[in-house]
Amino acid sequence: MIISIIGIGLIGGSLAITLKENGFAKKIIGVDINPDNIDKAYRRHLIDEDMELENAIDNSDIIILSTSVDVMLKLLPRILDRVDKQIVMDVGSTKISILEKVKNHPNRKNYVASHPMAGTEYSGPEAAIPNLFDNKCTVICDKENSSAEAVSKIESLYQSIPMSIVYLDSESHDIHTAYVSHISHISSFALALTVLAKEKDENRIFELASGGFGSTVRLAKSSPDMWVPIFRQNRDNVLDVLDEHINQLARFRSLLIKKDYDSFYRLIQESNEIKRILK
Amino acid sequence: MIISIIGIGLIGGSLAITLKENGFAKKIIGVDINPDNIDKAYRRHLIDEDMELENAIDNSDIIILSTSVDVMLKLLPRILDRVDKQIVMDVGSTKISILEKVKNHPNRKNYVASHPMAGTEYSGPEAAIPNLFDNKCTVICDKENSSAEAVSKIESLYQSIPMSIVYLDSESHDIHTAYVSHISHISSFALALTVLAKEKDENRIFELASGGFGSTVRLAKSSPDMWVPIFRQNRDNVLDVLDEHINQLARFRSLLIKKDYDSFYRLIQESNEIKRILK
Repeated sequence: MIISIIGIGLIGGSLAITLKENGFAKKIIGVDINPDNIDKAYRRHLIDEDMELENAIDNSDIIILSTSVDVMLKLLPRILDRVDKQIVMDVGSTKISILEKVKNHPNRKNYVASHPMAGTEYSGPEAAIPNLFDNKCTVICDKENSSAEAVSKIESLYQSIPMSIVYLDSESHDIHTAYVSHISHISSFALALTVLAKEKDENRIFELASGGFGSTVRLAKSSPDMWVPIFRQNRDNVLDVLDEHINQLARFRSLLIKKDYDSFYRLIQESNEIKRILK
Repeated sequence: MIISIIGIGLIGGSLAITLKENGFAKKIIGVDINPDNIDKAYRRHLIDEDMELENAIDNSDIIILSTSVDVMLKLLPRILDRVDKQIVMDVGSTKISILEKVKNHPNRKNYVASHPMAGTEYSGPEAAIPNLFDNKCTVICDKENSSAEAVSKIESLYQSIPMSIVYLDSESHDIHTAYVSHISHISSFALALTVLAKEKDENRIFELASGGFGSTVRLAKSSPDMWVPIFRQNRDNVLDVLDEHINQLARFRSLLIKKDYDSFYRLIQESNEIKRILK
């Protein structure tokens, strides 16, 4: 299988490593408008060859679109315009916008909308790592609008890693990811700003910060180039969840103000319920 | 050195493992009002012997107080009433209350207030692990009120692990920990409640939650028995930081409502500054 990866960053690069290593891809073609990324991708052996977009499409069996989600909206129609038998998949964190964009495209059936649920706070080809996706979960959206052959190929791709597959409609996907991914990022960004705003003596942060702080604030290192387009496309769901999150914080605040530590205790107990779900 | 550990949980138990393994402690005496904890501590080889508090004090060189911070307020005066040459240290996450409690105690100089900055979201003797403290940082507070000999003994204890030592007054300690530890916990509790409140289909949370969600919500598994007393004692500082955190979230919210994605981008860039501080 010859696979083109459009956008060789954390996700595209990590998929390149994985699919080459497990033999699913015979050859990886890299496409990136940033020549630095292509250089880095060669030096890290992420790609075998680089091409312009049109050439890459013509020479591939599968095209993986792994740019930021705003760029995907521009590239996907262009790619579908040109495909013949090639299968196209994206790895974007939002699904309603992109599916809306190509819903009437004559080659819509060649495209499979997917979202592998894995990542780190780092970006670029230098952030690509092996095993990022191992045993994680991927979502395939609105699969009834893709051809059975296209879905089956993309399923084998993910199963080769291996990843488990969940099927969702795009509306559900965008709501669920607002809960389990997008809000965590806003929470981390805000926590970083809180500490930076309040804490003048930076060495103290560095010295005293233990694992707990590190893990809640880790996502605050994430790139705005990747995340702003996600928040833009999933704005309404993110706003809903953000409102709920601010309300929950306000409950803790109000109990502290009232010194109602019994209710505060029960609220923490309630939140401990997350143990049932997240081992 | 014979060391008594009062409260054999995550912190006390992990210190027991470490100080026995590195040879600093010849014998570990465990004290815990919960007989289950004593049982577990024996079965996990955390302690060599168990005793009543008074006996343990009489038979130790160093007494480590590692209960929740509310219980410490009751036990520390009782322990200091009885000590002769023994050195007492605590490992509590708040320092103003406990230091206020014993400031006029005739044996105040036998006590060193400390806070090793390490932990996990788990609690109890079963949560005790080796290497929890390795190369982390510990705080010693208001050391001028402890005898030079007491400080020096506790310094050797921490250096044996090894941990680096930061010296702070108790006011600074309680402010700093509100920033780098206590607010992270409230943020995680609130995030867990947000997701639990919004998300009815629990399997979906479990399936789709990736590393990012897991790390921001991990602390929400923490025990209210440990944390409510901390929030009670550090209420004013925690409220300050919580207000700031809610304000920061409100900034993100307001920019989303206005669809001002350029400012949203800049806000994320600002929060990325945490990279400078937290490697």
